[in-house]
Amino acid sequence: MTIESNETLVGGPEAAARVLVVGAGAIGGFYGSLLARQGWPVSVVCRSEAALVSERGFAIHSDTLGKWRFRPAATATHVTALEEAPDYLLLTTKVLAGEDRAELIRPAVGPRTVIVLLENGVDIEAPFAAAFPDHELISALAFVCVSRTAPGHIHHQAYGGLTLGNYPTGISGAVRRLAAAFRAAGMPVESCDAIVTARWRKAVWNAAFNPASVLAGCIDTGRLMADDAAVRTIRRAMVEVCEVAAAAGHPLPPQTVDAMLENTRRMPPYLTSMTLDALHGRPLEREAILGAILDRARSAGVPAPTLETFDALLRVRTAN
Amino acid sequence: MTIESNETLVGGPEAAARVLVVGAGAIGGFYGSLLARQGWPVSVVCRSEAALVSERGFAIHSDTLGKWRFRPAATATHVTALEEAPDYLLLTTKVLAGEDRAELIRPAVGPRTVIVLLENGVDIEAPFAAAFPDHELISALAFVCVSRTAPGHIHHQAYGGLTLGNYPTGISGAVRRLAAAFRAAGMPVESCDAIVTARWRKAVWNAAFNPASVLAGCIDTGRLMADDAAVRTIRRAMVEVCEVAAAAGHPLPPQTVDAMLENTRRMPPYLTSMTLDALHGRPLEREAILGAILDRARSAGVPAPTLETFDALLRVRTAN
Repeated sequence: MTIESNETLVGGPEAAARVLVVGAGAIGGFYGSLLARQGWPVSVVCRSEAALVSERGFAIHSDTLGKWRFRPAATATHVTALEEAPDYLLLTTKVLAGEDRAELIRPAVGPRTVIVLLENGVDIEAPFAAAFPDHELISALAFVCVSRTAPGHIHHQAYGGLTLGNYPTGISGAVRRLAAAFRAAGMPVESCDAIVTARWRKAVWNAAFNPASVLAGCIDTGRLMADDAAVRTIRRAMVEVCEVAAAAGHPLPPQTVDAMLENTRRMPPYLTSMTLDALHGRPLEREAILGAILDRARSAGVPAPTLETFDALLRVRTAN
Repeated sequence: MTIESNETLVGGPEAAARVLVVGAGAIGGFYGSLLARQGWPVSVVCRSEAALVSERGFAIHSDTLGKWRFRPAATATHVTALEEAPDYLLLTTKVLAGEDRAELIRPAVGPRTVIVLLENGVDIEAPFAAAFPDHELISALAFVCVSRTAPGHIHHQAYGGLTLGNYPTGISGAVRRLAAAFRAAGMPVESCDAIVTARWRKAVWNAAFNPASVLAGCIDTGRLMADDAAVRTIRRAMVEVCEVAAAAGHPLPPQTVDAMLENTRRMPPYLTSMTLDALHGRPLEREAILGAILDRARSAGVPAPTLETFDALLRVRTAN
């Protein structure tokens, strides 16, 4: 895996790219606002609060970067064709079962639009590659604590790093240009020529900590790490993800699990995104975080009893 | 395994035995009241509502046997020596971690007192056998829906069958006498010469359905059985218990798991005792229902990832 980081391109106004953010919640609003701060024209699609955002923009409060207001170039409640097709279409919707997100974005995808998937989960890219075989696809991972605190209000608490790469592999000029813009806005960015492997790596943490934190009573990572039995179960779940990843052609270094557990132990206590969703009564990203891994496990014949237990308990819990 | 059932001894007043129920909650109050109905002098120890019970007795409302009042021969808040030691000491406390239940009952155990353990879990008898090496020990399993609806009020909804046998094996005259009294009171009773195996058999259901029902959101068995992924996880947990039971010297018939699942599917939706405890904010019997099985699994080197996952999630949940 080649990782490029800490490089900066000079991005003057002549380098500005046209961006459409689809699903401008906390993640989309925050990362969209960073590009807007670099002078890029950024439009947004946000279902529920378009009127408010259109009138007042987003109020961004970042604990590391300060406060600013992000006024999108245009705001819409649904994806429609823009006068000028975007250079980048940044998709930041939740990944929920039963939604055809490729068809959702089709009206706004121009002939040269690069599609950027900034979402959780593994195996999320294939439907877009199939629906847009002639388009460049960028897959992106965010490591960020950001939340929507009120309509039009976004609170960036910590982190913000991105990992970007082409799907299925590679680092194109479009990846470098986007990375440079985020870097110029103050975010650490890695370009990665094996983004699918990076996605599996992130899934190791996500598929263990998100379900465990919800099922143990919507608690933070600190409380989980304080219980030896919980750590053993989380470790077993992480090892299961590594085994599925290896079977899917993405072996991870053997020290991955221990390093992640050690990092988590050193991190301040953290509420996972799934716990935040559960606490707020929002749908859980069970399908993105566990479903695709379990599909792979089953098709590869890799046992994953801990992940299956998490998935089953969350399914029933969600059905109530 | 030899099972004796459907036999009835004639029990006149001359056959009355003196009974002390320690931990007279729903189970203890109900089964104590059945013996009292047969004319046996039954005293009780109940921590929280002794004054009320002493004054008014227990109001028993059984959907199958009608209503009656159970006035104990004596009522106490703590176990103390009685003027005449009981023939049977029936222990029906919850099995929670860190309590020395053998020492709890010692003051009331006379030289000929038979100790009857009517409690959940596996491997619960050994501490009593060690503490009372010269006493006869009966181990008992109840299959009953009974709950405490208010102080001094007990509601018997359904079932009520008992399985009784000596620990570690055998069916003594004291077992037969007790079985006959419960049978005369209207309960189906089996005497079993391999009660430890019967206890493992019951644990197959308990260790799967109790934790799953709580962790999936305190739901009933009907909702669990309606989800294929949940049934797969429950089946895996049951198979793990069977594997631990076999390693502990108590192999169960191969059709055990399927038969239990089929029975559960046919039963009306049922709230497990652990779900009822969770809904009422009472301590969970995690240690009795899972802890002893996992100790056995570890010492025998039998993998039990599903049970370990249940246990870890419940531990953290309970610690909150």
